[in-house]
Amino acid sequence: MNDVTGILARHVVNARFADIPQPVRHEATRALLNCLGCAIGSARHETVENALAAIRDFAGPPQAGVFGRSERFDILNAALINGISTHVLDYDDTHARAVHPSAPLWPALLAFAEWRKISGADLINAFVLGVDTECRIALSVFPEHYDRGWHITGTAGIFGAAAATGKLLGLNEQQMRWALGIAATQSSGLREMFGSMCKSLHPGRAAQGGMTAALMASKNFTSSDHAIEAERGWAHVTSTRFDPEVITGELGTRFELLSNMYKPYACGLVVHAAIDGCIQLRNENNLKPEDIARVDLTLCPIVMELTAIKEPKTGLEGKFSIFHAAATAIVFGDAGEPQFSDAAVRDKRVVALRRKVTVAPDAALKKIQARISVTLNDGRTLTKYVENALGTLARPMSDADLERKFRSLTDGVLAKKQADELIALCWSAEKLTNAADIARAAVPCKTN
Amino acid sequence: MNDVTGILARHVVNARFADIPQPVRHEATRALLNCLGCAIGSARHETVENALAAIRDFAGPPQAGVFGRSERFDILNAALINGISTHVLDYDDTHARAVHPSAPLWPALLAFAEWRKISGADLINAFVLGVDTECRIALSVFPEHYDRGWHITGTAGIFGAAAATGKLLGLNEQQMRWALGIAATQSSGLREMFGSMCKSLHPGRAAQGGMTAALMASKNFTSSDHAIEAERGWAHVTSTRFDPEVITGELGTRFELLSNMYKPYACGLVVHAAIDGCIQLRNENNLKPEDIARVDLTLCPIVMELTAIKEPKTGLEGKFSIFHAAATAIVFGDAGEPQFSDAAVRDKRVVALRRKVTVAPDAALKKIQARISVTLNDGRTLTKYVENALGTLARPMSDADLERKFRSLTDGVLAKKQADELIALCWSAEKLTNAADIARAAVPCKTN
Repeated sequence: MNDVTGILARHVVNARFADIPQPVRHEATRALLNCLGCAIGSARHETVENALAAIRDFAGPPQAGVFGRSERFDILNAALINGISTHVLDYDDTHARAVHPSAPLWPALLAFAEWRKISGADLINAFVLGVDTECRIALSVFPEHYDRGWHITGTAGIFGAAAATGKLLGLNEQQMRWALGIAATQSSGLREMFGSMCKSLHPGRAAQGGMTAALMASKNFTSSDHAIEAERGWAHVTSTRFDPEVITGELGTRFELLSNMYKPYACGLVVHAAIDGCIQLRNENNLKPEDIARVDLTLCPIVMELTAIKEPKTGLEGKFSIFHAAATAIVFGDAGEPQFSDAAVRDKRVVALRRKVTVAPDAALKKIQARISVTLNDGRTLTKYVENALGTLARPMSDADLERKFRSLTDGVLAKKQADELIALCWSAEKLTNAADIARAAVPCKTN
Repeated sequence: MNDVTGILARHVVNARFADIPQPVRHEATRALLNCLGCAIGSARHETVENALAAIRDFAGPPQAGVFGRSERFDILNAALINGISTHVLDYDDTHARAVHPSAPLWPALLAFAEWRKISGADLINAFVLGVDTECRIALSVFPEHYDRGWHITGTAGIFGAAAATGKLLGLNEQQMRWALGIAATQSSGLREMFGSMCKSLHPGRAAQGGMTAALMASKNFTSSDHAIEAERGWAHVTSTRFDPEVITGELGTRFELLSNMYKPYACGLVVHAAIDGCIQLRNENNLKPEDIARVDLTLCPIVMELTAIKEPKTGLEGKFSIFHAAATAIVFGDAGEPQFSDAAVRDKRVVALRRKVTVAPDAALKKIQARISVTLNDGRTLTKYVENALGTLARPMSDADLERKFRSLTDGVLAKKQADELIALCWSAEKLTNAADIARAAVPCKTN
């Protein structure tokens, strides 16, 4: 039997920040900025409020902050809540083939940084290892594991959180095996929960449970030594497919973080190409909604299967309306959370414009592609073909795009000056003497 | 689709203590006494110490006690630790066909009782509902779920803890559905962990996770409404077999608690019949080890497959030695933890006697049966046939047996007077105005 758990544990124990290529380090800071924006922007989401109400009376000492809020909890409960808020809008990062990498990791790592002093380089190193651990384990059983009904961001995320926290704790190889094993035996999360608050509970629990696993292993709480690959180990119990090579191949040279993607728009991926093209046409031609006679979209057929609501009544319904998405993009030049608010859905200019939107399916188009034709009242027609929607690996969001997204999400929670500071801290994360500076900057300053 | 989750939720919400038959109520008190004995007796076990060391710095306010110790934690962490200590010796109760019912339940319920005042009748009602919930859900997917590699005490136990705690919280039907759903999506525990400290982590996490699920549901944290039976629900994701009738049939008239068993001896079940017969022969004939020439056991073949160690060196090895088990039973007249200590394994009389023990297999015998022949130095031969080992459903431990086991486990942790008081509290549990009296009596009195 291939000693998968042992090989992975050894790699995590020995990996050094100095060996991480610069593009991977920079990608970590992009993931950090994106994660904090999502979490801070969701700090008052009903899902977060309900979870907080449930655990508030039982949490431990004020060791770590809740992003975008004033509460402080023990690091395990802080990780739980921040994991929920990172994912609740489904606006966090997405690995090209599997999990949402950041939501189980940054909440655990930043809480840890507030509890035990670590450097920014330690933080980045732990994150990179966490991403490789969770993504490799996920991909080793993908897609059969996911197809069976497991929400892989939760089930694999807990391994990432255990490895990353274990790295910061300085676990030895035997303890790192145990940490992965304790994570394996707590791994959970059902896709059946999609559409309910439990979807975002999964990365929160992964962050909390993985951290718990590492802490227990640090006190020599034992598990199986072969939790991943054993005949009755995690992989075989939860999937009909298991390729151990995916976990152990090219460790330290292939970085899964380089396959990470960020969503520019606060809605499902299938709508992004249309939004992207509409925003480009608007900005290139200084389009005004009142000048537009009609907007004709040609799209992959799946778009109308998933987002066909003609007259959305709420912001949430707006996310499932390709008509609203195109109109709000042209009216506002963006498609963040504010453009999918209840107010935006009722905005008179948006309502008028979305009634001028038509959709035609074209099976030759991929879901990241779109053809857009805008006919103006003066008779002119403007067209745009989007080959790769913004945010895909082929056309990633720029650092400036990520800053814009961050500002849009945190506006109203953080003062502008504080947002500037937090952005700067993220970009310079690897140089920080104390990584806790980031976590501390992610809570609103007191206003007196 | 049969609305299994809804039917079960409705039953739990509506079930009344007054409708529980007296034998079921009494069985609940027997389970309570047995659980507390196991937990108190394991309060200083290495597994418990390591878990405590890991969570100590992160636990919340001192709301609930740790059985057999002086620490007080928030109710969720108290439930975790007490769930571990209840199961760590594998000496806790066993449903005739599935889970260890008590370990995920009493730790949650007694912690709850210290936090919010509930009556003894409420406590018993919640426990009975918890047992029915976890056992029925377990049996609906058994044995395929277990055969796949899931440790069913953990995976099903969390549903029991959610239902029982949810009952005490007064959840409405919708919230009880959510509680079961939040439990489903946290359900975990791999059999791969058997032999490591993680085995007892499973019921601890089930107690803690189930309680968390109920608390979240009470704050309207939503889940799927059909978490158990949906196409991608817990049952189908974790098992190839699912019989919903097992969950919904005869609710309120068939009580799974009546299939509960207690272990009289601190070792694997296959050795119990031999121990039982040896103790009977000893007591009936006032046997002295020095008068014995030989002990010949005829047993089910599986006994020698599992417990063939001839010369055990440690107490743990003694549990896997049929030779030690028979000898220690005759020397001491019992086979509790003290009789499987390192000291007992090295006891001169025990060592001498176990070398006189022979074992012959007989495939006609079940593993709960034994034929024993003791030949004395004076030439007499004494024989005993055990048809049903003590502790099986056909020959349950008496209340006096359970008291004896409790005293043996708690000796050295609780003073005799306190043990007497706790025993009395357990037997009268349903009459208590404040169920917290039980939890408070399960920690050693201060000795100043």
